[in-house]
Amino acid sequence: MAVRVGIFGYGNLGRGVELAVKASPDMELVGVFTRRDPASVQTVSGAAVYPENALQEMTGDIDVLVLCGGSATDLPVQGPKYAALYNIVDSFDTHAHIPDHFADVDKAASEGGKLGIISCGWDPGMFSLARIYAEAILPGCATYTFWGRGVSQGHSDAIRRIAGVKDARQYTVPVPEAMEEVRAGKNPSLTTRQKHTRVCYVVAEEGADLERINREIVTMPDYFADYDTTVHFISLEELHEQHSGLPHGGSVISCGTTGRDGENSHVVEYRLDLDSNPEFTGSILAACARAVARMAAEGRTGCMTLFDVPPAYLSPQSGEELRAHLL
Amino acid sequence: MAVRVGIFGYGNLGRGVELAVKASPDMELVGVFTRRDPASVQTVSGAAVYPENALQEMTGDIDVLVLCGGSATDLPVQGPKYAALYNIVDSFDTHAHIPDHFADVDKAASEGGKLGIISCGWDPGMFSLARIYAEAILPGCATYTFWGRGVSQGHSDAIRRIAGVKDARQYTVPVPEAMEEVRAGKNPSLTTRQKHTRVCYVVAEEGADLERINREIVTMPDYFADYDTTVHFISLEELHEQHSGLPHGGSVISCGTTGRDGENSHVVEYRLDLDSNPEFTGSILAACARAVARMAAEGRTGCMTLFDVPPAYLSPQSGEELRAHLL
Repeated sequence: MAVRVGIFGYGNLGRGVELAVKASPDMELVGVFTRRDPASVQTVSGAAVYPENALQEMTGDIDVLVLCGGSATDLPVQGPKYAALYNIVDSFDTHAHIPDHFADVDKAASEGGKLGIISCGWDPGMFSLARIYAEAILPGCATYTFWGRGVSQGHSDAIRRIAGVKDARQYTVPVPEAMEEVRAGKNPSLTTRQKHTRVCYVVAEEGADLERINREIVTMPDYFADYDTTVHFISLEELHEQHSGLPHGGSVISCGTTGRDGENSHVVEYRLDLDSNPEFTGSILAACARAVARMAAEGRTGCMTLFDVPPAYLSPQSGEELRAHLL
Repeated sequence: MAVRVGIFGYGNLGRGVELAVKASPDMELVGVFTRRDPASVQTVSGAAVYPENALQEMTGDIDVLVLCGGSATDLPVQGPKYAALYNIVDSFDTHAHIPDHFADVDKAASEGGKLGIISCGWDPGMFSLARIYAEAILPGCATYTFWGRGVSQGHSDAIRRIAGVKDARQYTVPVPEAMEEVRAGKNPSLTTRQKHTRVCYVVAEEGADLERINREIVTMPDYFADYDTTVHFISLEELHEQHSGLPHGGSVISCGTTGRDGENSHVVEYRLDLDSNPEFTGSILAACARAVARMAAEGRTGCMTLFDVPPAYLSPQSGEELRAHLL
């Protein structure tokens, strides 16, 4: 029986989940739920669009609700609210607040007899899995995470908030020399600045003070001040032509040793090179929706992360098929 | 309470497990079990050495028995035999016979109320995990596995069986151009010959017919005939100086697409670069011993593979620690 999926929130990520569910023969898309006027929303696949309050009455129609809101203000509220009513999956990605979000979803889901899996993206998510496997095998290994080359939406938004900026796109770029040192097992001590650079493409309003905009970007605390940042002013046309995609990726590299005196080194690398960050993340959420439906059917409740999910639950194949073909 | 581990079989792999258990503060090595005369075996860590038949009487002293025999003739017998008495872990790696071995261990372990995890190496094992995660996220993706550069012990043994050969070491080497095509998302069709080459270092007996040895190697069915194989005759001293290690590694590369018309490509790569194949494999077995002890304590019985193990069970850290530091 197909897993019946609902999607709450229909931006880039919601569309990514929609495409992934449509590409999975064992899943069925019940509909998209939105805080906007449903009449104003056209789905990629022609899926039905409902207002948010319809979720109060559709608990019998949906096996898993995939929450596609933002981590800053949407998911901290929506996670516990809907985990009380539905099995849920989200991609909550504010690392520092994961313990709180986990506790909130765990409480609501446990009380409602539902199951939630949070933080199911690629970081947190697949990169977290790379870290846990490497560190379980090689205790005390050094693990480095490099992001990019890819578009950081949070940093692009931060630039857009500067006066005189019409639009902007920010790329996070790993420093190749730093990655090579890590891959060579040298366990270097790397500052923030030594690991990544930031490249910004900015469309300024006519007559804006470009020098001031440049200065406001490169000195912005938290976002840019700790990095070597390059700012390119370009036209709106060039932004649309050259920078309309949302590519991303990166590497988790772990280096550890074994032997009587640590004489043997081992390097483990997990690397992603993604044309579309939201579509890949949406595909992870869809696989996690499959897992949550199965584990909920076995009576599991509360909150989990990918650390708690046996990999086989993510796959549509049976145990026999998996052992015969993928093991 | 520490996980009490026994090791059955004390070759390179058994020593790798011993070192890994010693490097894990939450594990305790009860002893090494051998079919040889225990008095003839000196362990790296000074661990006690027992004859195989002591295993009949030590079921109360050991939480997990790690089987370190070979896949050809040892594990098919030892797996079911000891899964009836102990929770076991092994690194059975004959891909074609995994379903049979799984069924045998499952039957014995289920009847004995024990739990076994089989095929816990890096291929099968960590590479299998790379495959299942990528294929669950990107249905229909193409997955390629490249091995090396590394020493293949089976192929080295095959050369040693040729008349006139004193010793030999065989390296499996991936073809760089093939890997680059795959990483570029070109989904190439690759023959066996196009994916890997084989490089052999051979010490011949004095007066042996080198041309015949070379011919017997490169034309050997299954092992070498389907590959471009290079044979280098070297001295025993050079073999010991330059080729005494057992390095290995490789990459699992999956390429899939998302989007309305598959317009976005994604490349996922999991790569290992190992100074010591048996020590890294032994470290995986130790982590799996931790998982099997925990899952058995929860009442799980029968046979599993890494596909069935929630990653958190492999780690000594608590769920809270993992979510706070690795997610």
